[in-house]
Amino acid sequence: MSKTRITILGATGYTALELIKILLRHPYVEVVGVTSREDKRLISQVHPSLTGLLNLALEHLSADEIASRSDCVFSCLPHTASAKSAPELLARGVKIIDLSADYRLDSPEKYQLWYSETHPDPDRLGNVVYGLPELFRQQIIDANLVANPGCYPTSAILPLTPLVKSNMIEPTDIIIDSKSGVSGRGRAVKLDSLYCECNESIAAYNVGSHRHTPEIEQIISIAGGKQSTVIFTPHLTPMNRGILTTTYSIPKIQNLTKPNILEILKAFYVNEPFVKIIDHLPATKDVAGSNYVHITAEVVGNRIITISAIDNMIKGASGAAVQNFNLIFNYPETTALV
Amino acid sequence: MSKTRITILGATGYTALELIKILLRHPYVEVVGVTSREDKRLISQVHPSLTGLLNLALEHLSADEIASRSDCVFSCLPHTASAKSAPELLARGVKIIDLSADYRLDSPEKYQLWYSETHPDPDRLGNVVYGLPELFRQQIIDANLVANPGCYPTSAILPLTPLVKSNMIEPTDIIIDSKSGVSGRGRAVKLDSLYCECNESIAAYNVGSHRHTPEIEQIISIAGGKQSTVIFTPHLTPMNRGILTTTYSIPKIQNLTKPNILEILKAFYVNEPFVKIIDHLPATKDVAGSNYVHITAEVVGNRIITISAIDNMIKGASGAAVQNFNLIFNYPETTALV
Amino acid sequence: MSKTRITILGATGYTALELIKILLRHPYVEVVGVTSREDKRLISQVHPSLTGLLNLALEHLSADEIASRSDCVFSCLPHTASAKSAPELLARGVKIIDLSADYRLDSPEKYQLWYSETHPDPDRLGNVVYGLPELFRQQIIDANLVANPGCYPTSAILPLTPLVKSNMIEPTDIIIDSKSGVSGRGRAVKLDSLYCECNESIAAYNVGSHRHTPEIEQIISIAGGKQSTVIFTPHLTPMNRGILTTTYSIPKIQNLTKPNILEILKAFYVNEPFVKIIDHLPATKDVAGSNYVHITAEVVGNRIITISAIDNMIKGASGAAVQNFNLIFNYPETTALV
Amino acid sequence: MSKTRITILGATGYTALELIKILLRHPYVEVVGVTSREDKRLISQVHPSLTGLLNLALEHLSADEIASRSDCVFSCLPHTASAKSAPELLARGVKIIDLSADYRLDSPEKYQLWYSETHPDPDRLGNVVYGLPELFRQQIIDANLVANPGCYPTSAILPLTPLVKSNMIEPTDIIIDSKSGVSGRGRAVKLDSLYCECNESIAAYNVGSHRHTPEIEQIISIAGGKQSTVIFTPHLTPMNRGILTTTYSIPKIQNLTKPNILEILKAFYVNEPFVKIIDHLPATKDVAGSNYVHITAEVVGNRIITISAIDNMIKGASGAAVQNFNLIFNYPETTALV
Repeated sequence: MSKTRITILGATGYTALELIKILLRHPYVEVVGVTSREDKRLISQVHPSLTGLLNLALEHLSADEIASRSDCVFSCLPHTASAKSAPELLARGVKIIDLSADYRLDSPEKYQLWYSETHPDPDRLGNVVYGLPELFRQQIIDANLVANPGCYPTSAILPLTPLVKSNMIEPTDIIIDSKSGVSGRGRAVKLDSLYCECNESIAAYNVGSHRHTPEIEQIISIAGGKQSTVIFTPHLTPMNRGILTTTYSIPKIQNLTKPNILEILKAFYVNEPFVKIIDHLPATKDVAGSNYVHITAEVVGNRIITISAIDNMIKGASGAAVQNFNLIFNYPETTALV
Repeated sequence: MSKTRITILGATGYTALELIKILLRHPYVEVVGVTSREDKRLISQVHPSLTGLLNLALEHLSADEIASRSDCVFSCLPHTASAKSAPELLARGVKIIDLSADYRLDSPEKYQLWYSETHPDPDRLGNVVYGLPELFRQQIIDANLVANPGCYPTSAILPLTPLVKSNMIEPTDIIIDSKSGVSGRGRAVKLDSLYCECNESIAAYNVGSHRHTPEIEQIISIAGGKQSTVIFTPHLTPMNRGILTTTYSIPKIQNLTKPNILEILKAFYVNEPFVKIIDHLPATKDVAGSNYVHITAEVVGNRIITISAIDNMIKGASGAAVQNFNLIFNYPETTALV
Repeated sequence: MSKTRITILGATGYTALELIKILLRHPYVEVVGVTSREDKRLISQVHPSLTGLLNLALEHLSADEIASRSDCVFSCLPHTASAKSAPELLARGVKIIDLSADYRLDSPEKYQLWYSETHPDPDRLGNVVYGLPELFRQQIIDANLVANPGCYPTSAILPLTPLVKSNMIEPTDIIIDSKSGVSGRGRAVKLDSLYCECNESIAAYNVGSHRHTPEIEQIISIAGGKQSTVIFTPHLTPMNRGILTTTYSIPKIQNLTKPNILEILKAFYVNEPFVKIIDHLPATKDVAGSNYVHITAEVVGNRIITISAIDNMIKGASGAAVQNFNLIFNYPETTALV
Repeated sequence: MSKTRITILGATGYTALELIKILLRHPYVEVVGVTSREDKRLISQVHPSLTGLLNLALEHLSADEIASRSDCVFSCLPHTASAKSAPELLARGVKIIDLSADYRLDSPEKYQLWYSETHPDPDRLGNVVYGLPELFRQQIIDANLVANPGCYPTSAILPLTPLVKSNMIEPTDIIIDSKSGVSGRGRAVKLDSLYCECNESIAAYNVGSHRHTPEIEQIISIAGGKQSTVIFTPHLTPMNRGILTTTYSIPKIQNLTKPNILEILKAFYVNEPFVKIIDHLPATKDVAGSNYVHITAEVVGNRIITISAIDNMIKGASGAAVQNFNLIFNYPETTALV
C-alpha cells in the first residue's frame, strides 16, 4: 500500500517537532517535505533529536510544489500566515490539518477582534470543522480542512461540554483556571520565554484577554447546545509541557455528588480511546508524552470543580492533529498515538 | 545592648533553615539553641548551607533548659507537638512564635474537625493573636504567644480582606485557586515529595479539604468584619518556593474597575512596608527570597480577580515569624527582612 | 501468532513503568504479570499514567506461578533480590532480562567488594552475557539470561570501547565525568531524593566509590581487548532523565584530530540502529524518551574528549532491556523502540 | 557619615539585578544611577522584584554626568563596551569595579585572540588588579579599577591555586569540568537560552574554546607561581544559578591523602570569611544566594579531584564585586554579604 505523503508547513517550532516524532512512528505515512520561509538547514540541524531519523532539508515551497508531492499538509505556521497558504492548497486538492488558530473561530469579525488582524480567507469561517474528534468525529472524517483545537480549549471543552449538555451547570458562569507548561509559548525567541524568566516561578498572563477565550465559549456553546460564557485565566508554569485546567461552575441541580458527575462524564466518553474519567486527582505528568486526557470532578461548597490534564504538545496540538489525520484518511484513529 | 536569645524548636526542616538564615542577619539576636527529638548532629550537618555559620548541635531540651537560656522560642514543630510544648514554656516566661497551625483556629472543635486530633492546649484557642502584622499589629506587639499564619492563608487573606471590609465583594462566594512550590510540603520523607514525582508536573491536591480553608475563612471573617466562606483549591507546582494565589469573587458594586480596586488596596496597605500593590501581573520569582507580597487585581466579566505572590518560606512562614518577633521585642519591624 | 507472555518483577519503580510503556507499544508481547512483595494495588494506582492501559494488579508470585504464565521475565528487583529469584525461574525455562546489577560483574568476589553482599547465585558469574547489543549481539541472541547494563556504563562504554580497541587511547588513564537525572536514583523514598533536595542544585556523589566503576572497567577491558582502568565521577543533575558523560583520555597516536576519531566511531557503529555519531555537541534532551545514544568527540590540548548522551531510563535501562528481549525472541531488534 | 554614591552601568541584566539587591542591604551606599543605552523605563519595570525598593529610571549618561554624581561605578556592560567607558570615568576620579571580562587578561593580544575584538584600552592591560580578594587583597585595596573575576574562573582558581603553589599537583595537566546554571548565559534574548531549550537537559558547550580558559590559566600561573595550563569543559545545567566545578589533576607527591589536601586548603584560606573547606561533597544549593564558596578534595586512583561550589551570580559576579568595593572603600569586607 502506498503511504500518505505529508508536508509540514513551518517545521522549525516545537509542535512541528512533536508532529514529526509521531509521524515517524506512523506506519502509513511518509513525511516528504518540511518548509520554512527562511531557514534552509537540514531538519536535524534545527531539531537535533531527529539526527539520523529524517533526512530532509527545510525548503520554501510554492503551493504547486507542495501539491505535487503531498496528499496532506499539517500547517504549523503562525496565525494569519496559515490562512494565507490554505486556500491555494485546498484548491489543488491537498487536505489540511491547520494547527494555527486561523480556522477555529466562526466569523471574520470575531477573528479581527481577538487577533487584531484581517482574516485572509474570511469566507471559510463558520464552515470549517473544529478538530476535536470527541465532539465532531463525523464532520472530521468528511473534511478537507480541519481546524486543530487550541491546547487550553481542549483541556477545558472536554470536561465542561458534557456538563453543559446535560444541563448540570450554569453555562454562562464558568471560571477556568489553567496552568500550562512553557512549550505552549512556542519557540519564538522572546525575553519572556528565557529559562531564567520562567524557571522557579509561576504567573498568570493575559488575564481576561487570552485568545483562547472565544474559542472555548464558541465550542462549548455549539457542542453543549447552550450559549456559554467563561472567565479564563491562564498561568505559565515552570515545566516543559502539560496543561492542568481547574474549572469552577454552578450546579443547576440540587445535591449533585461527585459520583453523579463522574457518571455523566463516563457515559459521554464511554467509547473514546483517549479520554479517561478518573476518581483521583490528575497530574500533568500522568499524561506527559501521550494523547490521553485525564478528567475528574469534585463538588465543593456551591461549586462543581472539574480538573483535567493533557500534554499541551500532544493532545493539545500534534497528537490531536494526527488523530484528525487518521480520521480523514481512514486509518485506525489511534495509529501512532498509543 | 545584650542580644535577645532565641531557641528554635524542631530545627531540621526547611522553615527552620530559612529562619536561621534570617536570624543570622539580625543584629539584635543570638540563636542559642536548636532542638530535635532524635537528631544529635551539628546543625550544619543537617543543613550544609550553614557550614561555618552556626556552631550548634541539635539537642533534646526540657522546658526548663530552654527557659534558662532563651528569651524567645520559634516553634517549627509539627502541629499538636507544638501545642504540647507551648504551655510550659509560656509558664516560664518564654515568648513564643509558633509556626505550626496549633494556635491559628479559634476553637478546639474546629481544630479537631480539620486536624483530626484533640488539641493539647484547648483553653488558649480563641485568645491567641494571629500573627499577620498587616491586620493585627497592635495585638502582636503585646503578645507572649503568636500564631504565625499559614502560607496559603497569607497569600489569600491579604488581597481579600480589604475587599470584604470595604463591601466590594460578596464575602460568602469566593474562589481561591492557589499554586505553591514544593517546599510547602516540608522536609518529611514521602513518596509524593520525591523529585521525579513533582518535577515537570502540576496537580491539584486536597481539593475541598485543605486545612488552610477554615483558617482563611476565620481571619477574613474577623478582619473583614463579615462572615466569609471560600472554596480553596491548592495546586503543587514544580518549583522550590513561592505561592501564587488567584481569587475570583463577585462584586457587590456595579461597574467596578481595576483602578477602583487597586485604590482600595493601596489605601488599605499604604503604610505597610512589605505589601506592594502593583498594576502588572505578579510572578512568584519577583518575591522569591523576600518578605514582600505583590498584589494586583483585575475585573473580568462578572468577577473581580485578585492575584498575589509571596515566597511561601519567607512571608509565608519564617519571614513573617521574624516580623512578628521584631514587633514583640520592639525592634524595627523590618530588621533582617530587607 | 501467539504473543510472548511477559511478567515484570518489582513493578512499582520507575524502570518498570518505562518498561511497561514500551511493552504496551510492542505488537508481539503481552504483559501478563506484575509483581511486588507487599503492594497489592492495581498497577494503575501505583503508576497513574497507566490508567486504562494495563488492567493488572500487583501480585506476590511464586516461581511456579510465574513460569506457568510467562515466557520471559524482566527483573526490576533490587540487587541481590534479583539473583535470588533468577535461578529457579531459569530452571523452569523462563528467560530473564535482569535490569539489576546482579549478573553484570564477572566474579562473586568483585560483587562482594562493591555491593557488600554475598552473591546468591555465584556460579553463574563470569558466564552471563552483558546485554549491550552493540558489543555482544551474538551472545545475547543465544542467551537465557541477560545482564542488562547499568545506565552510566552504557553512556561510557559505547564511546570509549572503539577508542581502546583501535589503540587510540591509553586504556588505563581514563577520566569519566557523568551527569545524571534524578530518576537514576530510583523511586525509593529517601531524603536525598526529595524535590527540594535535588532541584536547583548539582552535586557529585559517590566520588571514587560508585558501583558502576568496576562494571565500566570490566566491559571496556573485555570489549576493547585491553585491561582498562577508569576514574568515574557521577553528578546528580536537576532533571528527571538523561545522562551526559564527558570522558578525558590520553591519545596514543600523535596529532589525532576530531575527524579521525569520529571516523573510527562511525566505522565501529556503522550498522547500529541506535548509535548516532554526531559532529555537534549532544544534549540529553536530544535523546530524551528514546533509545538512541548520541556521541561526539573533541581533541583539546593533550586529551581526547568524548561526550555522549542517553536517556538513562530508556537506552540506560528499559529500552536496552527490550532491545535485548527482541534479540532473544527473534523479533526485529528495533520493535517498539523507534 | 555620607554614603558612597554608586552608578551601575548596563543595569538591565541579571548581574545588575543581583548587584542592586545586595547594595540595597548595604548600609553605607546609595545607588544613584542606573544606565542603559536605549531603555528608559523605571528600573522596577525592567526588574519587577525591585518594585517599591529603588525609585530610579534608566538613563543614558555621559561620563561627566556619571562622575558628577557618583563615587564608584559598577560596570555590567558587555565586554568591549566596558573598556570603552572606563578610561574617561577613571580620568574623572570615579572608581570602577568592572564585571565584564575587559580587564582580566594581561595583554591586548590575548584579548584579541579570545574575544575577537581589538581592545579599546590596551595600555592598561597587565596593570589591572584581578578582583579575587582571597589572592589579591592588598592590591585591590589600593586600586581605582578592579577586574571582577569570571564565574567559572572563581570556581576553579580557588581550589587549584593552593595545590599548584604548594607543589602538590602538576600545573600543566589539569582538567576542569564545570557545570553552570543558565543565568551564566545572561539575559540576552537567544534561542539557546529559551526555557524549553535548557530545561530537562544538560550539555557541554564551547569545548576547548571557552573564553574563561586563558583567564583561569593566567591567574593560576600568577598566584600559584608556576606556568599552568588547563583543559576546561563547561556544561549548561538546568537550574537558575550555581556552578559546580570538578577538577582532575596529577599529584606530584606520592601517597597523598584527602586529609593532606584538605589541610593545605584550610591553611591557605584560614582567615578567609567566604571560603569554607569541607569534608563532605558540596552542592550548589548549599551556597545559592550567598557569597560563600565550598571546596573539598578527594584522591581517586592517580588523580587529585577537587570539587567546589559557588553561586555564579554572587561569589561568581555581584557578591565578589561588592566584596571588592568594600575593600576599596574601606568598609568591613563582609558588609551586605552575610
